[in-house]
Amino acid sequence: MNAIPRLPAMPPAADTTIPAYTASGNERFLFEKAWEKRLPLLLKGPTGSGKTRFVAHMAAKLGLPLFTVACHDDLSAADLTGRHLLKGGETVWVDGPLTRAVREGGLCYLDEIVEARKDVAVVLHPLTDDRRILPLERTGELLAAPPSFMIAVSYNPAYQNLLKNLKPSTRQRFVSISFDFLPREREIAVVSQESGLDEGAVAPLVDLARRLRTLKGQDIEEGVSTRLVVYAASLIAAGLPRAEAVTAAIIEPLTDEPEVRAGLAEVARAVLG
Amino acid sequence: MNAIPRLPAMPPAADTTIPAYTASGNERFLFEKAWEKRLPLLLKGPTGSGKTRFVAHMAAKLGLPLFTVACHDDLSAADLTGRHLLKGGETVWVDGPLTRAVREGGLCYLDEIVEARKDVAVVLHPLTDDRRILPLERTGELLAAPPSFMIAVSYNPAYQNLLKNLKPSTRQRFVSISFDFLPREREIAVVSQESGLDEGAVAPLVDLARRLRTLKGQDIEEGVSTRLVVYAASLIAAGLPRAEAVTAAIIEPLTDEPEVRAGLAEVARAVLG
Amino acid sequence: MNAIPRLPAMPPAADTTIPAYTASGNERFLFEKAWEKRLPLLLKGPTGSGKTRFVAHMAAKLGLPLFTVACHDDLSAADLTGRHLLKGGETVWVDGPLTRAVREGGLCYLDEIVEARKDVAVVLHPLTDDRRILPLERTGELLAAPPSFMIAVSYNPAYQNLLKNLKPSTRQRFVSISFDFLPREREIAVVSQESGLDEGAVAPLVDLARRLRTLKGQDIEEGVSTRLVVYAASLIAAGLPRAEAVTAAIIEPLTDEPEVRAGLAEVARAVLG
Amino acid sequence: MNAIPRLPAMPPAADTTIPAYTASGNERFLFEKAWEKRLPLLLKGPTGSGKTRFVAHMAAKLGLPLFTVACHDDLSAADLTGRHLLKGGETVWVDGPLTRAVREGGLCYLDEIVEARKDVAVVLHPLTDDRRILPLERTGELLAAPPSFMIAVSYNPAYQNLLKNLKPSTRQRFVSISFDFLPREREIAVVSQESGLDEGAVAPLVDLARRLRTLKGQDIEEGVSTRLVVYAASLIAAGLPRAEAVTAAIIEPLTDEPEVRAGLAEVARAVLG
Amino acid sequence: MNAIPRLPAMPPAADTTIPAYTASGNERFLFEKAWEKRLPLLLKGPTGSGKTRFVAHMAAKLGLPLFTVACHDDLSAADLTGRHLLKGGETVWVDGPLTRAVREGGLCYLDEIVEARKDVAVVLHPLTDDRRILPLERTGELLAAPPSFMIAVSYNPAYQNLLKNLKPSTRQRFVSISFDFLPREREIAVVSQESGLDEGAVAPLVDLARRLRTLKGQDIEEGVSTRLVVYAASLIAAGLPRAEAVTAAIIEPLTDEPEVRAGLAEVARAVLG
Amino acid sequence: MNAIPRLPAMPPAADTTIPAYTASGNERFLFEKAWEKRLPLLLKGPTGSGKTRFVAHMAAKLGLPLFTVACHDDLSAADLTGRHLLKGGETVWVDGPLTRAVREGGLCYLDEIVEARKDVAVVLHPLTDDRRILPLERTGELLAAPPSFMIAVSYNPAYQNLLKNLKPSTRQRFVSISFDFLPREREIAVVSQESGLDEGAVAPLVDLARRLRTLKGQDIEEGVSTRLVVYAASLIAAGLPRAEAVTAAIIEPLTDEPEVRAGLAEVARAVLG
Repeated sequence: MNAIPRLPAMPPAADTTIPAYTASGNERFLFEKAWEKRLPLLLKGPTGSGKTRFVAHMAAKLGLPLFTVACHDDLSAADLTGRHLLKGGETVWVDGPLTRAVREGGLCYLDEIVEARKDVAVVLHPLTDDRRILPLERTGELLAAPPSFMIAVSYNPAYQNLLKNLKPSTRQRFVSISFDFLPREREIAVVSQESGLDEGAVAPLVDLARRLRTLKGQDIEEGVSTRLVVYAASLIAAGLPRAEAVTAAIIEPLTDEPEVRAGLAEVARAVLG
Repeated sequence: MNAIPRLPAMPPAADTTIPAYTASGNERFLFEKAWEKRLPLLLKGPTGSGKTRFVAHMAAKLGLPLFTVACHDDLSAADLTGRHLLKGGETVWVDGPLTRAVREGGLCYLDEIVEARKDVAVVLHPLTDDRRILPLERTGELLAAPPSFMIAVSYNPAYQNLLKNLKPSTRQRFVSISFDFLPREREIAVVSQESGLDEGAVAPLVDLARRLRTLKGQDIEEGVSTRLVVYAASLIAAGLPRAEAVTAAIIEPLTDEPEVRAGLAEVARAVLG
Repeated sequence: MNAIPRLPAMPPAADTTIPAYTASGNERFLFEKAWEKRLPLLLKGPTGSGKTRFVAHMAAKLGLPLFTVACHDDLSAADLTGRHLLKGGETVWVDGPLTRAVREGGLCYLDEIVEARKDVAVVLHPLTDDRRILPLERTGELLAAPPSFMIAVSYNPAYQNLLKNLKPSTRQRFVSISFDFLPREREIAVVSQESGLDEGAVAPLVDLARRLRTLKGQDIEEGVSTRLVVYAASLIAAGLPRAEAVTAAIIEPLTDEPEVRAGLAEVARAVLG
Repeated sequence: MNAIPRLPAMPPAADTTIPAYTASGNERFLFEKAWEKRLPLLLKGPTGSGKTRFVAHMAAKLGLPLFTVACHDDLSAADLTGRHLLKGGETVWVDGPLTRAVREGGLCYLDEIVEARKDVAVVLHPLTDDRRILPLERTGELLAAPPSFMIAVSYNPAYQNLLKNLKPSTRQRFVSISFDFLPREREIAVVSQESGLDEGAVAPLVDLARRLRTLKGQDIEEGVSTRLVVYAASLIAAGLPRAEAVTAAIIEPLTDEPEVRAGLAEVARAVLG
Repeated sequence: MNAIPRLPAMPPAADTTIPAYTASGNERFLFEKAWEKRLPLLLKGPTGSGKTRFVAHMAAKLGLPLFTVACHDDLSAADLTGRHLLKGGETVWVDGPLTRAVREGGLCYLDEIVEARKDVAVVLHPLTDDRRILPLERTGELLAAPPSFMIAVSYNPAYQNLLKNLKPSTRQRFVSISFDFLPREREIAVVSQESGLDEGAVAPLVDLARRLRTLKGQDIEEGVSTRLVVYAASLIAAGLPRAEAVTAAIIEPLTDEPEVRAGLAEVARAVLG
Repeated sequence: MNAIPRLPAMPPAADTTIPAYTASGNERFLFEKAWEKRLPLLLKGPTGSGKTRFVAHMAAKLGLPLFTVACHDDLSAADLTGRHLLKGGETVWVDGPLTRAVREGGLCYLDEIVEARKDVAVVLHPLTDDRRILPLERTGELLAAPPSFMIAVSYNPAYQNLLKNLKPSTRQRFVSISFDFLPREREIAVVSQESGLDEGAVAPLVDLARRLRTLKGQDIEEGVSTRLVVYAASLIAAGLPRAEAVTAAIIEPLTDEPEVRAGLAEVARAVLG
């Protein structure tokens, strides 16, 4: 009857492998316990600390379809729950990703939730207390979440400010985990595996990244993500001289200020020798 | 004639039990007297002090269908009263939750009303004085509320500010009740019952929560809700070590500041031993 | 030809009685003279001083259909004059309440006019000078107000500010009346009659209200309305202890500040004995 | 072909008399000369100084159909030029008042032009230089104004501010006239004629108004308009005591401040004796 | 196939004469050279310095169809490029003036470009570098400008501010010309020709205008345009006394301040004798 | 089935030549390595430093279809991904340029990305990490980018501010290159080739530009682009005197301030002799 058919869940057939994930603490055990009790989960941590991949890893491990929503300034409740669209002159209803996760079961993951509009938090409230329901005012439905439904959200505490934050009435609905960067040895292993550069060549890059992370809040806004280290290693593996790779993949992405850039280059020369 | 049929009231069949509620004062008697006189009710109190569950409890006890609306920045009067939608090329009218409560009788509950847009307060005015009417300008109807109609609203005084508050002309239309957290023994009983953890293990968690609530307004924005204590107890019951459960379910949801987190962990160690 | 038919005037059959109104000054005589000369009327006064009921009273007494519009932030000229709607694929015109009052005759009352958008004042201009016309630009009509048309507006001077006020070019189109609370004896009579509580029990409540009104502008934003005194008396009549009724119906609606609340409770104890 | 037919000009049949107007300077001769040369005209002056009636008077005297537009915050160029509307599934074009004045000839009068949105000034530019054209971008038409077309605008200099003003590029397209209140004797004659109160009783009211006008910019924002004096005289003629009429029609419309009101009442008592 | 046909270019038949233009510098030669090299042109200058007429003059002289767009606050890229409209139930595309100029060839002139919304500048970028293309994302077309296409924009530097200006990335795409008022003798000739007043009577008016222009930035925001001098001369030619014409056409359009007006009248008396 | 057919890629047939590009550093090699590893690329640099042409050059050299999007204040994610449009009463989907680049393969280039709305950055996230996917929530598709897909963005660090910048979570997804102006000799060669003016005549113009670039941040907001030097040389080649060409093509585009303009003219006279 819906002229625009229900959208099928993300095709699990194409990728049945569990994404690799290197844990840095008790996050896997905690996720499993939260899942056991169906408690909502909040992941906090800096850029590139692996929150999104962790969620993908756990969803695959638990066999849950994953509905990821990257939040932004204009994301509203209707983007999550669904909308009426015109189709052949008729108004039909199209589920949003949150509604799909509730109807079909699965893990709904809202990345960077503080970026979204305020009505998004409100739509989560009845799903994150003992009611576990999703009222769809526009269709008149009152969906009860199945046992296979779970919700996780993430945000970067460094980005919170007066205008963008989670109200206590929302925060206090989530069990929370703080994320941080990988320990040195594990980061070297991960970078080497993803870039194809051997661990010996990767180690000084990781040391440089760890050194630069200590400057966060002083000259640079955010620490170097593991992703950037992988980029640098990849460029080196592709034949770019190391200094040029470090400039392009690590230093330039961190700052636009000539003085800061010069300072970081100095640090790089000192660390890399 | 309406191609989109009137939405039936929330299915009472699925849940005919009265939600458990542990009173902390005279709120039940006061609610009943307000209901007897059909006076509008305003519930004030912090996050997690049980306002929403109290309303569900009283609605079930009085046998009133409950129409709950979680208010947010973009909620407008039309979201409460209803809208015209296109259906088969015709414009049809779909009642909003407030209109349904007036037509069908029942308790309409607007949660966090100060979050809503300003025109929401105005639509409540003729329903909250001796007229007890709801004019629907867009359909030309003038609905008289039946004797089975009552209205309750809530808000958290801690969130009021210059931009978001209730004007005296609205406030003075409601009998008001202030909510606070449960007394110690009752909170222990509630947490034990909801988490399945025995009262002896719950008691130190409640003591910690009570201790942390005294810090409100100093290092933390809002006190620990009973819900978070239930979360911590549930994780412990599921096998997570107590310290990790307290960190994930009580400390992390309260703050993102490393120093504050360390201070709260200190308090936790002191209280829990 | 209009698929959506003209809306009939508010059903006068259901309520042919004249709403009770206790005058506090010359407002009834002045209203009659303004009506005699068809002069527009502006009612000024605090919350709960009886402006809305006065208008209902005078409309009923003069036998005028009453079109009340509660103004708010998003109320625009089109909400007053009318709109084109889609109906069966055709665009049809639906009169707003102001247009209806002009077409059918009657008293159009705009409550809290300073809340409305600025274009609302402009649409009133040609109706409030010697032209007494309503140009409907969107339908091409130029309606002349019949002799049975009158306009009244109200606002609360306490809410005016730099952004929300009436321009002199609008204000100077209205004969104006200031409202204030009822004198003591009349207020006691009104509260007793509406709550069913005898005058002896009502008197101390009114004395408390009058005492609290003197605090306006100091600790509380607005004085206690007669409505709140009726609420307190009603709860007492329903069996609630007087102290609890005064807290719920008079003190809690006035403030959220613990210190102010304590101070008001002190005043209540002193006045009520 | 247009399903919504072109709107006929304002029905001149209903009112073929020339509205009375008492000149206070050379404005009639100047208007005629501007009309002779087809120069655009800008009328400046305070509330109630007779700008709107002057335009109606001149339009009738010169036999020009009058298209009046009261400008406001949301008035945009499309409100003046026209819009596409849906009619029977087809998009049809409906002329706005400016376009009608250009097509049919006549005087287009934009009252309080500084209130309108900025694109309104721009649409006037090609009509107010030697081109005298109105390009309708949405219909692809380029209308040349006929010799019977003239444009006049007005505004109140007291309302101009940083956000709301006329840019020099717009102002310098208009011949300008400043308006002020009528001289004493003429104002007495006008008020007497419009209110039906004899000149002897009107004189002290006019003297009071003239006295209060000298306070403009001190305690009151704007001087008393002649309209308010007519209101006061009308109420007196209807039987209201003079003091009450002066309070309701002159003092209350000027201020909400109790102290200012008391001061004005003092002045009234002194002037009226 | 387009139910709404392409709009024909502005009818050149109606006016094949070249608008008169009196040059004040090398602007004609520079325009021709820019045209020869197809370089975009930016005209800067105060109100009434003849930018718009200069463009009309050059377009006629070079035989280029002229597409003029008066920019304003709400003018967006889509107003220039085109829109989809509903026509008979089908979505059809209607070219905007910029697209027409690219398709048909001609001079596209954007008057007061700093007033337009920011996306307007962006749509000009690929047309004002060596690509000379106009990508129409909504229709999927990539239009190459023909050799007969040229673009000119103008703005008044006096109106630039922090919010409204041209970014260097836009400015540096245009060859620029500054405009100023005509030299004395040429201005006298132009005013005399356009007003029909003889040069002897015009000369003192021009001398007054030149004197008042020296006050710009002190008491008045902008100098007197030649248009205003033409107005004054026209009114004198029509029989208005010179002093009244100067007041209405020169002094009143410059200021609303009584003191400034008195000062300018003083200057006028001194200059005119 | 889509009534509005998929838009074909930009017609490569019309221009199969590789746009000329003169490198100033290792940018070509770095681009190739980033392409080899399919890493996203961020180009930073001032106006006119050749970023856009560099991208066109590399796309042509690598044989990649190029999808350029000039970002602006109102550019939203939907402008990149696509929209539903009404067609024959049916809702059809039309791909945006980013979606086309993902479906068809090719280089998607977002120019001045900091100008775009915030949701644009979010839509890039899953395309710029190891997932390389583009979820189209509105169509329910999950597009995997083909090996022939690459993404590049650019911005001008001088324009960044508190409101407009790239968040670290976005920046750290891109390998970055800083651009600057060409060395003197290369710039002379480029200008001579593009303008047709011989190198001897071009050299002093380039020297002037280089001299003026040192004033950036003092009197002028941005240095002279190579494009402006080409303009000046073109005008000279067309016969305009050098001084006039320099004024129109170099000095006027840099400033509106008379004093600054005089200072720059002074510098020009000194440099050009």
